[in-house]
Amino acid sequence: MRRAQTTNDFQWIPVAGNGLLDRRLFLTGGLAAAPMAAGTALGISTAHPQALSDGSWMKAPGLPFSGYGHPSQHESKVARVARSAPGTTGAGGSRTPIQLLNGTITPNGLHFERHHSGIPEINPDVHRLLIHGLVKRPLVFTLEALARYPMESRIAFIECGGNSNFLYEREPSQLGAQWMHGLVSCAEWTGVKLSTLLDEAGVDPRASWILAEGADAAAVSRSVPMAKAMDDALIALYQNGERVRPANGYPMRLLLPGYEGIMQIKWLRRIKLTDAPTMTRDETSRYTMLLQDGKAFQFNFPMECKSVILQPSQGLTMKGEGFYEISGLAWSGYGKITKVEVSTDGGKSWAAAALQEPVLSRALTRFRIPWRWSGGPAVLQSRATDETGYVQPSRDKLMAARGANAYFHFNGITSWAIAANGDVKHVYT
Amino acid sequence: MRRAQTTNDFQWIPVAGNGLLDRRLFLTGGLAAAPMAAGTALGISTAHPQALSDGSWMKAPGLPFSGYGHPSQHESKVARVARSAPGTTGAGGSRTPIQLLNGTITPNGLHFERHHSGIPEINPDVHRLLIHGLVKRPLVFTLEALARYPMESRIAFIECGGNSNFLYEREPSQLGAQWMHGLVSCAEWTGVKLSTLLDEAGVDPRASWILAEGADAAAVSRSVPMAKAMDDALIALYQNGERVRPANGYPMRLLLPGYEGIMQIKWLRRIKLTDAPTMTRDETSRYTMLLQDGKAFQFNFPMECKSVILQPSQGLTMKGEGFYEISGLAWSGYGKITKVEVSTDGGKSWAAAALQEPVLSRALTRFRIPWRWSGGPAVLQSRATDETGYVQPSRDKLMAARGANAYFHFNGITSWAIAANGDVKHVYT
Repeated sequence: MRRAQTTNDFQWIPVAGNGLLDRRLFLTGGLAAAPMAAGTALGISTAHPQALSDGSWMKAPGLPFSGYGHPSQHESKVARVARSAPGTTGAGGSRTPIQLLNGTITPNGLHFERHHSGIPEINPDVHRLLIHGLVKRPLVFTLEALARYPMESRIAFIECGGNSNFLYEREPSQLGAQWMHGLVSCAEWTGVKLSTLLDEAGVDPRASWILAEGADAAAVSRSVPMAKAMDDALIALYQNGERVRPANGYPMRLLLPGYEGIMQIKWLRRIKLTDAPTMTRDETSRYTMLLQDGKAFQFNFPMECKSVILQPSQGLTMKGEGFYEISGLAWSGYGKITKVEVSTDGGKSWAAAALQEPVLSRALTRFRIPWRWSGGPAVLQSRATDETGYVQPSRDKLMAARGANAYFHFNGITSWAIAANGDVKHVYT
Repeated sequence: MRRAQTTNDFQWIPVAGNGLLDRRLFLTGGLAAAPMAAGTALGISTAHPQALSDGSWMKAPGLPFSGYGHPSQHESKVARVARSAPGTTGAGGSRTPIQLLNGTITPNGLHFERHHSGIPEINPDVHRLLIHGLVKRPLVFTLEALARYPMESRIAFIECGGNSNFLYEREPSQLGAQWMHGLVSCAEWTGVKLSTLLDEAGVDPRASWILAEGADAAAVSRSVPMAKAMDDALIALYQNGERVRPANGYPMRLLLPGYEGIMQIKWLRRIKLTDAPTMTRDETSRYTMLLQDGKAFQFNFPMECKSVILQPSQGLTMKGEGFYEISGLAWSGYGKITKVEVSTDGGKSWAAAALQEPVLSRALTRFRIPWRWSGGPAVLQSRATDETGYVQPSRDKLMAARGANAYFHFNGITSWAIAANGDVKHVYT
């Protein structure tokens, strides 16, 4: 630990270069009786009660109750942004405004979407789930039947395999965190364990894979190893308490914690047990990792350990020197996040950020670290480590391993450069 | 452990009277290669792929993307129900449909509401938070200033002090779980620790209470002990990731984990440090516990340990004998839930339910236990224990202690009687 600097009557303990401060400063009440010494730079002023707003809203009764509520009209910019494939309206993706959110849960209205032929409007009374193939008894489940099975809940992230792929481009994209990294969201999912239903159908010992198929017009299909199906796969019926949203698979989706998003089949209608992967379109022509020599890695299931700083990030502007909290999200398809390090000097020095409890396996983890911005140039980076010991690589290292043809599973470090005027830019270091 | 009963080729291990089964049955994969022996009673049939629905939604592209999504049109009945005070539209409460939800998170659109003069439509650019009274420096905070402070997230329930008060009535209410127990919800809240701001203002040693005041037309105000303010109180800016909803205090509310709902002041505008409680209307004429002898308990802050079975519950109908999962919610304003016991024979025998991990302090905890309903009469009860060792009391015991004038903080055991035709009725045992 370096020696504490005293600024006015307040101790700021630097833990790495360019202003990074001890994360425990605020967590242990270290601020007690010591002002932040930021004064008017924080928009704070000493004041009398008269300094309070005296809004018209205190002078007349407000709005009545509603059956289902909505965000404030003043938050209309907190919305997903979408891009469709040419000539279509429902094939493409919409992205979560992760730089405007905080905490770890994504509200259902803002969970990212990735559709291959739009959102089917499914009548839940007609919908069925079929389990067949290498089983003793093929079974069909209505929603009512599934509702009587034992349920389980877990908080899990879902990330599109194509998330962050702007960072494979030669020049650093300036589209901001939402476009670059917004194909990831996190929710509490509740449903029936797939293993319970497979046990009931009676698994033929020859079955080593399942095929999962959706009831959208693209009938999106993927092969999943039997081990995952029998481990933590869930037939998710609820998302953050309520029924899964249409955009996320209503009335049911497959949840495969940590695996790439497209495998977690939405509008799930069919699971077939097989003795080999089915080699569907979305695991052969796409969602493979094309290498430099023209060969491709197939079946990259878990999303690799990754993190990104969101506050600040490109598109948000810093408002003067002084104290800031650097905050962002980290996640790994392989388990829990154990460490997130932050640098504000482009990787020359690093300090460990605080991880918000509870840190859950295969869920988004919020990290935070205090920073005193000098007003000078800074390059912000975060580097996550997961419980397997894997460390998020630099972009250079990732590009060297993957080559110029790579398109999916980008998990290198993102760098944000801060200029003296407070502008934040995406850079390659 | 009793000896296992064998039904067909499936072992069901009873753990209490009237059909309660070992909770580990499904949690440890005990069903492997053994069918549930419920067959068509579960609506399951052996089938060919042709048995699958072949919805029109698979034949044409579906709906496009949206900036902010909504639940399925088929879920319109999953809504809050509201009752306003006579002659008003925004004074009263709306209740969460807890019997139709699963997991522990309440989606923001369904979080219960309790307003004393409607929902103010606050312009966040004008809104200010004032901290004054017994401080060295009164301070005023804009939202922009607060955004630079260190944040913290926590999953916490909020429960209205009047929740469940139908159970004080002489005859058992038949309004269902939503009306009876729906003034409780749970979300991930993110914001600035109140202690951070109080430290910055400089607390006068004489300050032993704070007064918190809202910016609604009722200016709802409550006194909070300084110890709670300096412990885990949060100025909440985010609810399940997005900005706090208008109905829940936009742009900011006070979060006091575990304390009765009204103290967690919405639309927070002012915190005044004082050397005594302020004795506001809502802590003198109301929100006190009137005893049999005309005296009243004042300042009942934490909500006591409680649980309620929600699936099944009054208003839902059982669909034939056989396997069900009994599921519900438990919570305590004093900390973590350590145990929930369930009885299906009106309290004669009890078995411990499984608690969904992670079990968090002052958050809703989901409990589940398998049950084989014989088709005969049954009375379902749940009994929670928290980490202080406190056990949820029977209704009789609570009524004996509280007397006939009590109105707030009902936390006795709820009993659901199941008739042979599957109807579920609320009863007093």
